Amino acid sequence: MNKKSIAVILSGCGRLDGSEIHEATLTLWAIHKNGAEYQCYAPDIKQHHVVNHLDGQEMQEERNVLIESARIARGEVLNLADFQESLHDGLIIPGGFGAAKNLSSYAYDGSNCQVNTDVRNAILAMKKSNKPIGALCIAPTILANVLKQVELTIGQDKTTAENIIAMGARHTTTLQGEVVVDKKNKIVTTACYMLDARVDQIGDGIDRLVQELVKLM
Amino acid sequence: MNKKSIAVILSGCGRLDGSEIHEATLTLWAIHKNGAEYQCYAPDIKQHHVVNHLDGQEMQEERNVLIESARIARGEVLNLADFQESLHDGLIIPGGFGAAKNLSSYAYDGSNCQVNTDVRNAILAMKKSNKPIGALCIAPTILANVLKQVELTIGQDKTTAENIIAMGARHTTTLQGEVVVDKKNKIVTTACYMLDARVDQIGDGIDRLVQELVKLM
Repeated sequence: MNKKSIAVILSGCGRLDGSEIHEATLTLWAIHKNGAEYQCYAPDIKQHHVVNHLDGQEMQEERNVLIESARIARGEVLNLADFQESLHDGLIIPGGFGAAKNLSSYAYDGSNCQVNTDVRNAILAMKKSNKPIGALCIAPTILANVLKQVELTIGQDKTTAENIIAMGARHTTTLQGEVVVDKKNKIVTTACYMLDARVDQIGDGIDRLVQELVKLM
Repeated sequence: MNKKSIAVILSGCGRLDGSEIHEATLTLWAIHKNGAEYQCYAPDIKQHHVVNHLDGQEMQEERNVLIESARIARGEVLNLADFQESLHDGLIIPGGFGAAKNLSSYAYDGSNCQVNTDVRNAILAMKKSNKPIGALCIAPTILANVLKQVELTIGQDKTTAENIIAMGARHTTTLQGEVVVDKKNKIVTTACYMLDARVDQIGDGIDRLVQELVKLM
C-alpha cells in the first residue's frame, strides 16, 4: 500500500514573520513518525515584513516566503500556486505569525481578514474532495475565514476565539497537547504556542493531531 | 531537585548556512522530553554567507548568526561570548553547514580548520569541569579539532571520517539513529543528516543522545 501523503503549507521561517519553526518541524516529524509522507508548499510572495527575532523589531530588508520556507523544508518545497489536491490525502497548516501575516491578513484585520488566494484554493479543493485538514496555533483563523461553520481551537485566547466565532466558526477551549476533532467536517486543530508550552508538549499535540488526521483519511 | 541545564550552541537558521533546523528543534524537544532545560547560545558574528535554500545559490545579502539563531530559539538566545560554564550541566552542538562555516572553517579548510574562539572556550570550559558534550551531524569535527583524542561518529562519510582522524580523534561508523558514547571523555555524537534519514529517525537519534548525555551528568 502506498503511504498517505500530507501537504504542509509553510509561511516563511520564524515565529514573528513566518512559520513557527518548532511547530513546522514537529509537523514533519509527526507525519514521518505516523508512517505518512509530506510535501511542503509555500506561496511565492514577498513576506509582509522581516522581524529581528532577538529584539522583536522590524528589519529594513525583504525576504520571500517560498525561499525562506525552503530552510524548514530542506529545499523540498513547491510553489503553492502549483498545489494539486489529487496528489494528497490530507493538508496541515502550522502556525506562527506567517500564517496571520503572509497566508492571511489576520494579524492586522482580525475577523475581516483576507486569505491568500492560493491558500484558499488549496483548502477548498481538499474540502470539496472530503479530505481532512489540520491547523495549528493561529492557523485555525484561516479555516474559520474560508470554511465558516467548522469547530476549531486556538487554546484559551478570548479575542482570537471571539474573532473565530465572528467569522462563523465554533470554538472549543483547550489546554496544552489537546486536539479538537470536527469529525463531520474532517477538521483537526491544536493550540501549540497559542498557549505557554514546552517543546515536548508541542510535539505531543502535533503527534495527536496527525494521528487524528490519518484516521480521517 | 533543580532540573539539569543543557547549553545549545546554534550557528544560524538553515542547513546550508546555519543550524540544521530539524536537528536544532529536535534537540530542544529531546531536552524537554527528558526532563531537562535548555539555554541557547550563538556567536554574535556575520554569517559566512547567505544561501537560497530553494536553489542552493549564494544570495547577495548579509545576516547575523545570533539574530538568525533567535528564530529557532524563539528569541531566547544569548551571545556565546557570555557563556557561563557554571550555569550548565551539559552542552550540545547541532549540525548544519553553520557548524562548518560559522562556528568553524571546516567546510573550507577540512582538517586544517579554525574553530571560533567563543565556541572553543565553551567546549574547553565544559571539558575542564568534566561535563558532558554532545555533537550532531558535522559538528563532531569541531570536537575533533578542539579536543583531539576523543571517539566520535559522523555516520559513514569516508572523507569526513579521515579528517576527524587527521585531527587526532577516533571515528566509529554508525547508521541512522545510532549514538556513539565516549564514556571516558563524556562525549556523545550522532550522525543525523550526515546520513539519508527520515525526520523521525533524526528525532530518535537525538532523543538517545540526550538520554546518554543526561546519564553522564
